[in-house]
Formats: sequence, structure tokens, C-alpha cells
Amino acid sequence: MTAVLPPTLVVGCGLIGTSVALGLRSHGIDVHLVDADPEHVRVAVARGAGVADPVSDPALVVVAVPPRATAEAVRAALRDWPDAVVTDVASIKGRILAAVKGDPGAERYVGGHPMAGSERSGPQAASGQLFEGRPWVLTPTNGSADASVRLVEEVAVMLGGVPITMDADAHDDAVALVSHVPQVVSSLTAARLLNAPTSHLALAGQGLRDVTRIAGSDPSLWQDILGGNATAVRDVLGAVRADLDVVLEALDAGRDLSAVLKSGREGAELLPGKHGGARPELVTVFVQVSDAPGELSRLFARVGGSGVNIEDLRIDHELGRPVGLVEIAVLAARAEHLVDVLTQDGWTAYR
Amino acid sequence: MTAVLPPTLVVGCGLIGTSVALGLRSHGIDVHLVDADPEHVRVAVARGAGVADPVSDPALVVVAVPPRATAEAVRAALRDWPDAVVTDVASIKGRILAAVKGDPGAERYVGGHPMAGSERSGPQAASGQLFEGRPWVLTPTNGSADASVRLVEEVAVMLGGVPITMDADAHDDAVALVSHVPQVVSSLTAARLLNAPTSHLALAGQGLRDVTRIAGSDPSLWQDILGGNATAVRDVLGAVRADLDVVLEALDAGRDLSAVLKSGREGAELLPGKHGGARPELVTVFVQVSDAPGELSRLFARVGGSGVNIEDLRIDHELGRPVGLVEIAVLAARAEHLVDVLTQDGWTAYR
Repeated sequence: MTAVLPPTLVVGCGLIGTSVALGLRSHGIDVHLVDADPEHVRVAVARGAGVADPVSDPALVVVAVPPRATAEAVRAALRDWPDAVVTDVASIKGRILAAVKGDPGAERYVGGHPMAGSERSGPQAASGQLFEGRPWVLTPTNGSADASVRLVEEVAVMLGGVPITMDADAHDDAVALVSHVPQVVSSLTAARLLNAPTSHLALAGQGLRDVTRIAGSDPSLWQDILGGNATAVRDVLGAVRADLDVVLEALDAGRDLSAVLKSGREGAELLPGKHGGARPELVTVFVQVSDAPGELSRLFARVGGSGVNIEDLRIDHELGRPVGLVEIAVLAARAEHLVDVLTQDGWTAYR
Repeated sequence: MTAVLPPTLVVGCGLIGTSVALGLRSHGIDVHLVDADPEHVRVAVARGAGVADPVSDPALVVVAVPPRATAEAVRAALRDWPDAVVTDVASIKGRILAAVKGDPGAERYVGGHPMAGSERSGPQAASGQLFEGRPWVLTPTNGSADASVRLVEEVAVMLGGVPITMDADAHDDAVALVSHVPQVVSSLTAARLLNAPTSHLALAGQGLRDVTRIAGSDPSLWQDILGGNATAVRDVLGAVRADLDVVLEALDAGRDLSAVLKSGREGAELLPGKHGGARPELVTVFVQVSDAPGELSRLFARVGGSGVNIEDLRIDHELGRPVGLVEIAVLAARAEHLVDVLTQDGWTAYR
């Protein structure tokens, strides 16, 4: 199948809509942009994401407005453009599908959710490469037209996404588990830090930073997402609360609570490893580096020269001293070699 | 003040005890090792952490047994070695101090908590550099002998730690907040992944990975830590549960829950930045790299040559393709320059 026919209409020029538009433009597709906020359109146009001129007959409409407004925008697009395929990018799918189902033209709608984002928002933060290698969930139904499904899938692939077809409700259950509930839990943990003495926060380490990183996300967007997936989120959060009650009772009664901790460890081990494959046995090599331009360059030049591949890495934030600790995860069988190479080169490296 | 007088006795040759011993040995200090498990002593001795011979008159005893056994081991050490300063490394302090208080020789005990660890345990995982740049909390009381406090502080500094003096109960409140509760929350979230369909887990992104990373820790150690700090942990977890109930009720009633999300964002912003200082404005630059030895070396050589310092970095795990996305956090004012440099050099880089 050849490329999407121009013109394409992108409705909503936030982070995701503008990123879609930039990606389509990089494939030479004629993109038209609309947004309730003219400033968003202006920025998106200035960034080369498309034109603000009206369009007479789009082949594709991509709805990229906030989740709470998505269903109505999809329905309007189906009405306004009777020949267009319509997709959206909202992170909830069941409610939108339910609202659209039964509408004239519903067979031209194929729900989508590119699982990419940024801690920043708006067209300024957009990038045509945002979707590279990310899952892009598609939620067609039995009633969807084959040509519509193929077109939306082609767009996902064109923008670098990995299309995954799922039932809309299964999608919502999945993101409740892997995205929405972790978001709530992160926020709940970070909220405890308010009003804590500075001397207590000074003891924070990487574990707390990791758990609370996503708590920095946009509250109003997340209100919208959580409200739109309330049933699925509630189910998972209710189970979290039941386990939390077990922990609280065990603490009160001085009973063992390691069953929950064991379940947590087993659950964490189920997460797919790098590139979605099975998780190989990795070992972390720690290397001290000074906080100056060029130090990491020198380190990775040496690591690269050793022939040992870096599977993952992290810079740890140290307290009160201008030195960084780099944690390099490598295949277990290669760790000793790497430590030897770096130590001989004068680095402080250890497993 | 000059160095710790030899010999020093380390009681317990796990990760922390053996790491302390290795660090002391690197300063030429005569270290004697004991452990209930002779295999631990054998490994620690083989790694050069000290000798297994009995000691007649230690100047310092470092108790590094599991938290639940620490109080009794400290009391035994104070009895057995009437001239020795005694410290410990347990991650809970109030209960130990309460058990020791009133004992003959209690003025020679100075509680300690080096805030370092590893996802691995045992003497095999030990390193004399484990404490480099990490907070090392000391919990002396009004009754502590000045010379004892100075000696333990000197050991912390000698091993690279950053000594922080706190009241034992304040320490326990602080670690409940910044370490123990995040651990429970991470485990509760990860436990939800058990029995989830593989297709749901395939949608997991970096957010879930971050929230659940510490859930991979040793359940029996954490049972011990949480049980030993039950009151403080319960207080913070109880507040988490109260907020969770607010979220659940809001989901049920279709009400706004962004207040909790806002509190979470404000709390996350309170965490001290790199090197314990204020958090500068950082921007993330994304760079695509192929998954081969030398690629990161080539990238960081270029970044180093650009004169832009890397404030933080992360390799994102992409789904189903052999390419990595490196996220490089740099000062906001430097991001555009870095993107330009990398793009000119043929990298796919964007903000």
C-alpha cells in the first residue's frame, strides 16, 4: 500500500498532535492544522508541522484533543468529513468507542493510542520522532472498515511506532495496570513529602527518586485520563488498597508482611526486558566520575573500546560532592572484564 | 585526629559489613571478621576484607548483622569489649538505642546508618567504595562519649560517607518517609502485575519500570526493616491510605481528584537535585542509538567534545526493535546547542 493521501487534518496541536503532524510532514504529506487555541496552531505552523489553511476533503483526520473532549471531536470529524478515515490518540479508548458506536460513519473510525509522551507539553515540546519504537495501540472493532484499519496502521508504522491491535476495553484495563495506577501511586508517595523537614528529605536516595519521578506530570491531564478510565483504575487501585490494608494490619500486629513483598518482587520480574525480550542476567558495574564536561565521554570511549555492550545505565546523584557514580548494567559474564579494563585505565570501578 | 587504632572487629560479613571491612583494610587498618555463617567469613577473608582470627582488644566494633539481631549484638559487644567503641549499620535506629540505653557501657555506643546498598547481597557483592558520597547517619545521644562519636564519624568519613547527625527517632521518621514507604508502595504496585496478561505487560513503559524497580529487593531484609520501624512506617502509610481513599471515592463519584495529583507534583519538586543542591532547569535531549558496542562511546565522545555537561541520563527500553533511545538531561540553555552538534554529526537527536 502506498502513502496516506494528502491532505491530512490534525485536530489539536498539543504535544502529540503536533508530533504526529511533524512526522507526517517529514514523509511529505500535506498536513492541515486546527486547534481551539490559535497560539498552538501558530507555534505548530512555525515549527513546520503543516498549514493553518482550511482543507476541503481530508483522507485522514487525526483527533489529538484532550481525552475528555476526544469522543465529541471524533463524532464531529465523522460528520464533517464523510469520506475521511478518523483516528485519535487518547490514552483511554473504551468510552470513546462507546460514544462513537452507532454513529453514521463509525466504520471509518479506528481508535489509536501512541504510547509516547514527555514531561513537557504543548507544540513547543513536539517531535516527529516522538513515536520511534513505541507501542501504538489500535482498537478496531468487527465493524471497522478494513481500509480504515490499514490506513491508520500505516500511519503508525510511518511514524516509527509498533502497532499493537487490542480490544478497546482490554487496552483500558492494560493501561490502568501499567500506567494509570503507577501514576496515582507515584503521586500518593510524592504527596507525603510536602511539609516534611528538609533534613528528612536530605536522606532521599535513588529509590525515592525513581518511585516519584512520574509524579511530576501534568495534574489536569492526569485528572482527565484517570476520570476517563475510572472503572479499570478503580479495580486495580482497590486491589492495591486491599494489599495495603494487609500491610497496615501486619505492622500493627507485629506480623510478617513478606508475602506482599514477595509478590512485588515476582511481579517486578515479569516486566519485559530491553527490546521486549526475556530479561538476561545483568550485573551493575559502578564507576566514579568527576562532574566535568568530557568525563563521561572518556569513560564511554573506554567502555566502547572494551567490546562490552552497555545494557542500561544510570547516573546516581551523590550527596554534597562534585562526583557522579555511573551505574553500567552489562551481561553478567562481561562484568569482570569491564571492571578490569576500567581499573587498569585508572578509573574507580567495582561491581 | 589520627586513624582508628587497630584492631577493629566487624560482626557480620554481609554486603555492608564486608564493605566496611574492605574500606577499612584499604586504609591499612587491622580488621577481624566474625559471622554466624562461616561461609560468609571465608568469602570475606578471601576478598581481603580482614582475618578470621580472634581479637583480644578491639578499639572499634562494627555490628553489621540483620536489623532484628542488631540490638542484642550491640549489647553483647558492649559487654564483651569493655574498652571498645561500638557502632552498627542498621537502617532502623530508635529500637536499637532503646534496647541499649541503660546498659553498662551505653556511652560507648554510637548508632550509624550508611545509606548505601545494592540489589545484590552477601560478601560477594561488597565493595570498599560502596559508601562513597552517600549519607552516613549518626545517632549519638546526650549520653554518648565525645571520643566515641568522633571515632565513628572518622570511620564514616574515611569510607567516603557524608556524616549526618540526627536524633534516632527523627532518623526513623525520615527513612520511613524517604525509603520504607516508597519500598512498600513499589511492592504493592508490582504485586498487581502478577497474573496480568502478557499482552498487558507488553504496554509497560519507563514510568512503571521506575516505580517498581526497588520492588526487586530482598523481601526478608525488608520484612525485618519494616517490622523494626513499624510505628513510623504505619504513620506515613496511613496517610497514603487516607489519600488513596480520597482518590477511590473521587473515581467512584466522578469527582475531580487533581488535588492529590497536584500535591504529588509539589512533593516531587521538593527532592534535592544533583549533589544535594537546588534543582537547575534541565531539558532532556533524546538521541537514537543502535544497540552495538561502541555506539554509546561514539555518542558520548561527541557530547563531551561539544562542551555540554551531562546532568543526568537514561537509556530507554524500546519495544521490539534493536535501537536504544538515550535521554540526556542538560542545562536548558545548552540543549539547543547539543541538538545542533549531534544532528550535524548524523545523529537523530531532538528535544
